[in-house]
Amino acid sequence: MNKNSSHIMALTPNTSNKRETVCIFGTGDFGRALGHKMIQSGYPVVYGSRSTQISNLIPKDAEVLSHAEAAQKAAIIIIAIQRQHYNFLMPLAEILHGKVLVDISNNLKLNQYPESNAEYLAQLLPGSKVVKAFNTVSAWALQSGTLDASRQVFVCGDDVEAKQMVMNIVRALGLTPLDKGSLLAAQEIENYPLQLFPMWKFPIFLSLGLTAFFFFYCLALDVIYTYIYEKNNFSFFIAITIPNRVCPVMALILLALVYLPGIFAAIIQLYRGTKYRRFPDWLDKWMLCRKQLGLIALAFASLHAVFTLVTPMRAFVSWRTSKGIISQALNNKTEPLNNTNAWISDCYLALGILGFFLFVLLGITSLPSVSNSVNWREFRFVQSKLGYLALIFCTAHTLVYGGKWFLSPSAYKWYLPNIYMLSLVIPCAVLVVKFVLIFPCIDKPLTQIRQGWERNPKHSE
Amino acid sequence: MNKNSSHIMALTPNTSNKRETVCIFGTGDFGRALGHKMIQSGYPVVYGSRSTQISNLIPKDAEVLSHAEAAQKAAIIIIAIQRQHYNFLMPLAEILHGKVLVDISNNLKLNQYPESNAEYLAQLLPGSKVVKAFNTVSAWALQSGTLDASRQVFVCGDDVEAKQMVMNIVRALGLTPLDKGSLLAAQEIENYPLQLFPMWKFPIFLSLGLTAFFFFYCLALDVIYTYIYEKNNFSFFIAITIPNRVCPVMALILLALVYLPGIFAAIIQLYRGTKYRRFPDWLDKWMLCRKQLGLIALAFASLHAVFTLVTPMRAFVSWRTSKGIISQALNNKTEPLNNTNAWISDCYLALGILGFFLFVLLGITSLPSVSNSVNWREFRFVQSKLGYLALIFCTAHTLVYGGKWFLSPSAYKWYLPNIYMLSLVIPCAVLVVKFVLIFPCIDKPLTQIRQGWERNPKHSE
Amino acid sequence: MNKNSSHIMALTPNTSNKRETVCIFGTGDFGRALGHKMIQSGYPVVYGSRSTQISNLIPKDAEVLSHAEAAQKAAIIIIAIQRQHYNFLMPLAEILHGKVLVDISNNLKLNQYPESNAEYLAQLLPGSKVVKAFNTVSAWALQSGTLDASRQVFVCGDDVEAKQMVMNIVRALGLTPLDKGSLLAAQEIENYPLQLFPMWKFPIFLSLGLTAFFFFYCLALDVIYTYIYEKNNFSFFIAITIPNRVCPVMALILLALVYLPGIFAAIIQLYRGTKYRRFPDWLDKWMLCRKQLGLIALAFASLHAVFTLVTPMRAFVSWRTSKGIISQALNNKTEPLNNTNAWISDCYLALGILGFFLFVLLGITSLPSVSNSVNWREFRFVQSKLGYLALIFCTAHTLVYGGKWFLSPSAYKWYLPNIYMLSLVIPCAVLVVKFVLIFPCIDKPLTQIRQGWERNPKHSE
Repeated sequence: MNKNSSHIMALTPNTSNKRETVCIFGTGDFGRALGHKMIQSGYPVVYGSRSTQISNLIPKDAEVLSHAEAAQKAAIIIIAIQRQHYNFLMPLAEILHGKVLVDISNNLKLNQYPESNAEYLAQLLPGSKVVKAFNTVSAWALQSGTLDASRQVFVCGDDVEAKQMVMNIVRALGLTPLDKGSLLAAQEIENYPLQLFPMWKFPIFLSLGLTAFFFFYCLALDVIYTYIYEKNNFSFFIAITIPNRVCPVMALILLALVYLPGIFAAIIQLYRGTKYRRFPDWLDKWMLCRKQLGLIALAFASLHAVFTLVTPMRAFVSWRTSKGIISQALNNKTEPLNNTNAWISDCYLALGILGFFLFVLLGITSLPSVSNSVNWREFRFVQSKLGYLALIFCTAHTLVYGGKWFLSPSAYKWYLPNIYMLSLVIPCAVLVVKFVLIFPCIDKPLTQIRQGWERNPKHSE
Repeated sequence: MNKNSSHIMALTPNTSNKRETVCIFGTGDFGRALGHKMIQSGYPVVYGSRSTQISNLIPKDAEVLSHAEAAQKAAIIIIAIQRQHYNFLMPLAEILHGKVLVDISNNLKLNQYPESNAEYLAQLLPGSKVVKAFNTVSAWALQSGTLDASRQVFVCGDDVEAKQMVMNIVRALGLTPLDKGSLLAAQEIENYPLQLFPMWKFPIFLSLGLTAFFFFYCLALDVIYTYIYEKNNFSFFIAITIPNRVCPVMALILLALVYLPGIFAAIIQLYRGTKYRRFPDWLDKWMLCRKQLGLIALAFASLHAVFTLVTPMRAFVSWRTSKGIISQALNNKTEPLNNTNAWISDCYLALGILGFFLFVLLGITSLPSVSNSVNWREFRFVQSKLGYLALIFCTAHTLVYGGKWFLSPSAYKWYLPNIYMLSLVIPCAVLVVKFVLIFPCIDKPLTQIRQGWERNPKHSE
Repeated sequence: MNKNSSHIMALTPNTSNKRETVCIFGTGDFGRALGHKMIQSGYPVVYGSRSTQISNLIPKDAEVLSHAEAAQKAAIIIIAIQRQHYNFLMPLAEILHGKVLVDISNNLKLNQYPESNAEYLAQLLPGSKVVKAFNTVSAWALQSGTLDASRQVFVCGDDVEAKQMVMNIVRALGLTPLDKGSLLAAQEIENYPLQLFPMWKFPIFLSLGLTAFFFFYCLALDVIYTYIYEKNNFSFFIAITIPNRVCPVMALILLALVYLPGIFAAIIQLYRGTKYRRFPDWLDKWMLCRKQLGLIALAFASLHAVFTLVTPMRAFVSWRTSKGIISQALNNKTEPLNNTNAWISDCYLALGILGFFLFVLLGITSLPSVSNSVNWREFRFVQSKLGYLALIFCTAHTLVYGGKWFLSPSAYKWYLPNIYMLSLVIPCAVLVVKFVLIFPCIDKPLTQIRQGWERNPKHSE
């Protein structure tokens, strides 16, 4: 009988505009929010509840019945109750046989239970068709209608037709269903809304740590040193001057850190003579967060660009420029154009601009919609070739900018090097090793290894 | 017999490379454009037409037959005729039984008929499988081959296999089918191509109105007042100076207007003690266009940034700088560095840069492909936390920039405040109320309400 | 029997968490990489191989059997062997009957064989269900786990259930399956990974050629001419000054080239009196790469913007400014503000900013995710209306900037015009012709033609 009713339900759209009745078990927050939204979208909603006393809490137009009665009225039953109460559905097994059960539950932490809630439900009620859905949508968003965030609803389930029915409801609510395959995906779907930028954590903490270090390093050399030895109060350097020294340093170091793991990987593969052994864990993790490192580097580079461009607007810079010009005027002399200076200044500006330009290009191609529209070969070309070109330009920009100070003793306040010297260590190392790696005598075996060749097949994993 | 032929059609791809014949009813513009494209993609096309006289209009390689004959040759029939002529298909009902009918019609205005054209067709011919498709593609684009716009074709229908067959054709034409579920979605699909930025209308008109007001306000105070009382002709301020006053003011006000409805919503919920009653209509609409308001604010902020950065290149600014330096030189004096000025200037620049940086970050995360790849929690974090931080930075930027003029009488030309003072009203109000709302004694009940708790359950809707 | 086993496979997810066994034919690089990845994802993997001697090459946890034995163990068989060896599968036809065969092969060049490899396999083994998949993923990416590029796996096949099974595996490996329809799509899918920016080639070569020409033109006029006739060594102009002359010229010309083919198309259609005849080949190709031309133009415009903004930071510019101010100070005079100059300078800056702003807006709307979320009407509005507005602004920017030099003989060094004069030719021509085309007497017949009307129906193709 249930089978029949489900069959009739599926056919109705052909003959009439009526939406099928949907049953919701549970009158908690999400159950009510979903019910409200469904009634707005034209679905008759019937709630299954232990008591009908609490009917004043639920939407006005919804019916409230006992669980058994409510379940019989609909082909789709949304289980808006918590996992620990799933047991009470066991006595209803017969009524729920052949019905589509939509598991919308979330857990409080990642991998809380050995199996996902939806799989647990499917085990309890093997006769029902369990579909996981709606757990990635927030009740508050559903209620307030402000779904400007992700409208995607991940749906998974073993029964294709049941999944289609649920996906139709999802679409009718103005959301976008995304088929994630069989119920095996439920674990992943249940973990999804609990994450908060998992891939970004390490890159962000690393950046914050390095930024703090370089900030205080600069503060000591540029403000405190100047105050102690030159009696100048340059405390306002904290606002722009020092950030504009830290940002480029961070951008360059992080950009080099994007390409460093690739260098390590190549060396490890050359040493082992195979690509079929896993990298050490730290290298694996590092390689997986290269995109994030690169984007943070781009953020620092952008800040550096803007901080640099506002330079002429700063009161301090105007004052310094005026002072220079006035002293020339008062001394009645005009300095001739220093051609070398003009070359150096134009060169490091041009190198910086080109490096930044390539960097922004890399950032744009890492947008999901852009990287999805290029194939693997194109992506490699952009991220590897253009990426190294950007690194070369940025390193050259730093070298040309500060090169003349390497040999000047006054650049070593308190015998410490200026931070742009520190910033050059990793990028130069990466570029030198990469340069060695593209020598034919090294590149050829590496390419063979990456194509599956193994030096000592016996030693493979 | 029809059923059989359809079945054989579906199997053919297995055994041969031949495309199935497609029948097109109607030789209007879209019918011909689609026919051309299909022939190019290797489909045999047969047209069903009242007379075969007009055959010189249709593609050379297509056959033209009577409707009945044409329909019998194909399993898929594209109905390229207007809704008002659908009646004439009734006599063909028997021939069309079991066939896939593709409704490609569009209306002239939104919700022109009570039911969608596709549903109307399905009612007329209940034995056929109606699929809605192709209506979102322009005939001109199909013909010229320049489909660089959206290649997406929305497809909906109640019969899954019929939908698959149509989606295969869509793919073969080089377009991307997008399954929108059952035929109930047809109304939405038919309305889709008639829209012209519906969500943007209110934000754009609001911005234009405010911009015009502030522009003339500035014109009066900066150009006309100066001309009348100081006899200076600063008419060229119209090109850069005034836009660069209006843009930041607009950016700040619009950014505050993004967060104002959230404040109203919180107050209304606190007052009502429930989240299950709908907000007033104006608030609902306002909340739905927050993203658009934010993006327009970002556009104004970007213009402000560029207008500011070109400042040193302006002839007027060069002249003013020269004049200042020359007068110092002629008076034989050098002004010492004003440390307070250096602090203020660097501070508001740094605050503006950071605010703008966060603002751009918000803009990037609102790109569809980026917002689809974050979950609800991450989106809330970025849009709410970082958004408020951006608002705080931008408000502080304005306060530091103009703070000193609040008490100066010369800032009140014609007793009117400068526009940056006007611009601070809404952002400051939003920040103050938000600050009150995050006090635990207010935040706690609000959080409970948003989790479904109700103060007076009896009063719910 | 095979049918049964396949059926049981499909049901297993309902009752247990176990993944189905997958068989891989071939122990080459891709076969091994895929096997590794599948074992990591929980699939039991069995290899089919001619000999079990090479077992030390394949993953430790995989079984190695003869082809026949391995095939019997699984419902899905991945054919990781090259097309030229497909023949040897013929004797296994009976065992492979009803099985899902996944063709993962790639070719060495575009359209290498008359039919795609997957279709060839389907012809060899008509009893098996052939699915094309995985060929767009790189073995190296699978192995190293660094799939930050496209995670999309194109899947096509004639059997819907077989496709679903393969798509489930794709999802389980952490990749995103994308259904491309029937096996007819296999040719396109096999060609896909062989492409390297096919649409970008012509625009990039055109840009490089033009850039080289304009660079040497500028070098001659600005550096060599100055050196010969004025004895000034301005060689450092190569770094910033000349690029900043070439970039805007390139941006303007390429932007005009985006709109030029549309002009040609309109003229051709007006002349022919129909839209149903194909454009000449060169025009078709040009129209298809307009987006790429526009994006390269945007890149040049962005470089121009940044090169301009760093101007005040250049040593040469500081020196020139100082020199001017000092000479005024030494002559004891202050030049008054030249109101015309102030107007011109502010005007071309403002026009440039607005043009660039619209240009960036066009660039953002051409991001795949943005252009997919607007309908055809909205896309046309942005790309056509706003595009022409951007072209008008940019042309006006150039005219206002250099207008005064048109009549000055000193601007024609060696009797050659300055490059910004050259750059104006195409944009002005496009704007003038477009202005003529929107006259009602011309626009009306053009609109009719584009709506399908034909002047001489007899002459249609």
